[in-house]
Amino acid sequence: MSESEGPPQVWRNVRLATFAPGLPGLGAVEDGALALRDGRIAYAGAEADLPGAALAGAEIVDGEGRWITPGLIDCHTHLVWAGDRAHEFELRLRGASYEEVARAGGGIVSSVGALRAASEDDLVRQTLPRLDALMAEGVTTLEVKSGYGLDLSSERKALGAARRLGELRPVGIRTTFLGAHALPPEAGGDKDAYIAQVADTMLPALAAEGLVDAVDAFCEGIAFSPDQVARVFDRAQALGLPVKLHADQLSNLGGAALAARYRALSADHLEHTDEAGAIAMARSGTVAVLLPGAYYFIRETTLPPVDLFRRHGVPLAVATDANPGTSPLTSLLLAMNMAATLFRLTVEECLAGVTREAARALGLLPEVGTLEAGKRADLAVWSVERPAELVYRMGFNPLHARIRGTR
Amino acid sequence: MSESEGPPQVWRNVRLATFAPGLPGLGAVEDGALALRDGRIAYAGAEADLPGAALAGAEIVDGEGRWITPGLIDCHTHLVWAGDRAHEFELRLRGASYEEVARAGGGIVSSVGALRAASEDDLVRQTLPRLDALMAEGVTTLEVKSGYGLDLSSERKALGAARRLGELRPVGIRTTFLGAHALPPEAGGDKDAYIAQVADTMLPALAAEGLVDAVDAFCEGIAFSPDQVARVFDRAQALGLPVKLHADQLSNLGGAALAARYRALSADHLEHTDEAGAIAMARSGTVAVLLPGAYYFIRETTLPPVDLFRRHGVPLAVATDANPGTSPLTSLLLAMNMAATLFRLTVEECLAGVTREAARALGLLPEVGTLEAGKRADLAVWSVERPAELVYRMGFNPLHARIRGTR
Ligand SMILES: [Zn+2]
Ligand SMILES: [Zn+2]
Repeated sequence: MSESEGPPQVWRNVRLATFAPGLPGLGAVEDGALALRDGRIAYAGAEADLPGAALAGAEIVDGEGRWITPGLIDCHTHLVWAGDRAHEFELRLRGASYEEVARAGGGIVSSVGALRAASEDDLVRQTLPRLDALMAEGVTTLEVKSGYGLDLSSERKALGAARRLGELRPVGIRTTFLGAHALPPEAGGDKDAYIAQVADTMLPALAAEGLVDAVDAFCEGIAFSPDQVARVFDRAQALGLPVKLHADQLSNLGGAALAARYRALSADHLEHTDEAGAIAMARSGTVAVLLPGAYYFIRETTLPPVDLFRRHGVPLAVATDANPGTSPLTSLLLAMNMAATLFRLTVEECLAGVTREAARALGLLPEVGTLEAGKRADLAVWSVERPAELVYRMGFNPLHARIRGTR
Repeated sequence: MSESEGPPQVWRNVRLATFAPGLPGLGAVEDGALALRDGRIAYAGAEADLPGAALAGAEIVDGEGRWITPGLIDCHTHLVWAGDRAHEFELRLRGASYEEVARAGGGIVSSVGALRAASEDDLVRQTLPRLDALMAEGVTTLEVKSGYGLDLSSERKALGAARRLGELRPVGIRTTFLGAHALPPEAGGDKDAYIAQVADTMLPALAAEGLVDAVDAFCEGIAFSPDQVARVFDRAQALGLPVKLHADQLSNLGGAALAARYRALSADHLEHTDEAGAIAMARSGTVAVLLPGAYYFIRETTLPPVDLFRRHGVPLAVATDANPGTSPLTSLLLAMNMAATLFRLTVEECLAGVTREAARALGLLPEVGTLEAGKRADLAVWSVERPAELVYRMGFNPLHARIRGTR
């Protein structure tokens, strides 16, 4: 595996899955070549059409027929957490009830306590192995949400740790403020008061510090109501920040339509979304981010309405939802396998879902997510005979090289 | 990661999951130490009781509180295959019927064709990356079945390739002859005639060449009947070879009881096994090998009767079933997560299922599978706070070191 910057590079004798908008499916180019210069893609297309200028001063790399995709993008993670919830998992398998787990210190409260007790350095140190696992499979951009701090200084610490990850590793990090994730223990059950604090104090402060690329909320009976979410989203809109939503995971509260009303970048989970929600998302261009790792781990049985999304033209992305409680998953390849096996996404939908559509879900499509001239030189080179292998295999990493453009 | 032989070694400041028969659960020893000498375990127990003799001339390694388990054992794989079936997977996701897949060259026939066309060197070269993936997660012993050759020379080639793997890598390989896997195309539909060839020609020849550690068969409507399996098992018994059985995966043909009648080392899959089968297995000491990767991948809905096995005291093992058609899985950690998540095995059952019980399923328990003085120095050292993390995480490898004793 290499991570290369520096001199211009031309990969020849490669097959490209460009995901370029004009091309069908993978946007495949057999007999392809890819030219990289100044951290950008200078050319992506047929080797026969490679412009001579691309070769000037360039290192030539024989790709030996390998496939190149855009660098993978994990567009929904809660990667910065402290401790883990393995003990809770163990207790549940022994038959413990939710109450017994809670009494043993489990549940999201335990993650909040652990994160608050950790320093920013602790958080970075604990998160790096998880980030490295994702990057080892070709991830070049990922989103990281806060939401285990639930007070100003702890949310700041989490977002700051997320930003540090991007300085310590050659990877793009997008930070999402998820203050409206859960009610903190000290709120005494008063959701409205806590939401006011999120919308009126925490979000403006963190946005002013430049720590917030997007704003997310958890819309669910066990979390916050559509009205409470709307309060947070109104503030985000006033601050000029895009929004995303944990929507319709366990029940249908109309989260998809709510997200669409705010022209959300994405609505995520969506197991219980109805047709009206799908239509609203299609109209607003909101991406449906599917999270099969959580579906699998908590043994959900209601499938997201993939056919509705297809019929109405809702873009589909796939992400890990990496988090300690419901999806301790740090493999985007495995997330694709689960999306195919459990949700019946096609190979092309899975691969577009961790490249082009994941970029769209982060508002980064002009910059990354496809192999097109002018985009950032983020790519993954795979030792596979056909792209389907990336989805079909389980627990196997055929990455040959990972390149992250720095400019 | 290190693979060490050579001078005696003492790991101190470690926590041991010994799986020793006298101890409950994991057989955990906190404040443990482990002494290795001449490729064997010289001591495994409390550091306070470490005999002074163990230290003589030994390299002392500070385990920094890490957990040590027996080296992992994958007791059911079809790891030696040629080509892959990613295209078939892709077609199925696009909605192709079984017939359409078969017309496109899919199904087990495609694996038979690819294996027959490959040289032994090809097979070894194609299999090594899969073996390396398993070993990278702490596997020190694995079983490899034939069954894509289906004629004498091709089955010999597959078993020979499996044996070669054990020469090329520091890992123990057990070879299982699975001639009775499927009917080869040239058999013209005559299962009895093919079974006669398996029992009367192929098995005796391959056994005489020393290529067969055990004999397996696939007992199912789409494969072979109990009577046909019995013909193969009678021959195995006459040759003094232990048997195993792919039993009751898609329907209940009484495979578990059949396996028990031959005192099989294991019966595997078992989704449709009934109480009589479980009782018979308990009496014969036959291990139930659970294969959640195949259950997941082919989206089965009938769970194996884990509670019946528990109630009657049937030992439970967990394996990958690594194969190109129904379980392209090369992670035993992930197999454990699936066994817990999908089959509700406890953490202790999962971990015992890839160590002690997997050793039992291969007839190797006197030699490996627990951390006990006298056994082979096969072990895995993990950077985890508690063993449950090995089961709970998905797509993350916390292996610190892997040691395979050579004697
Ligand atoms: Zn989430
Ligand atoms: Zn099998």
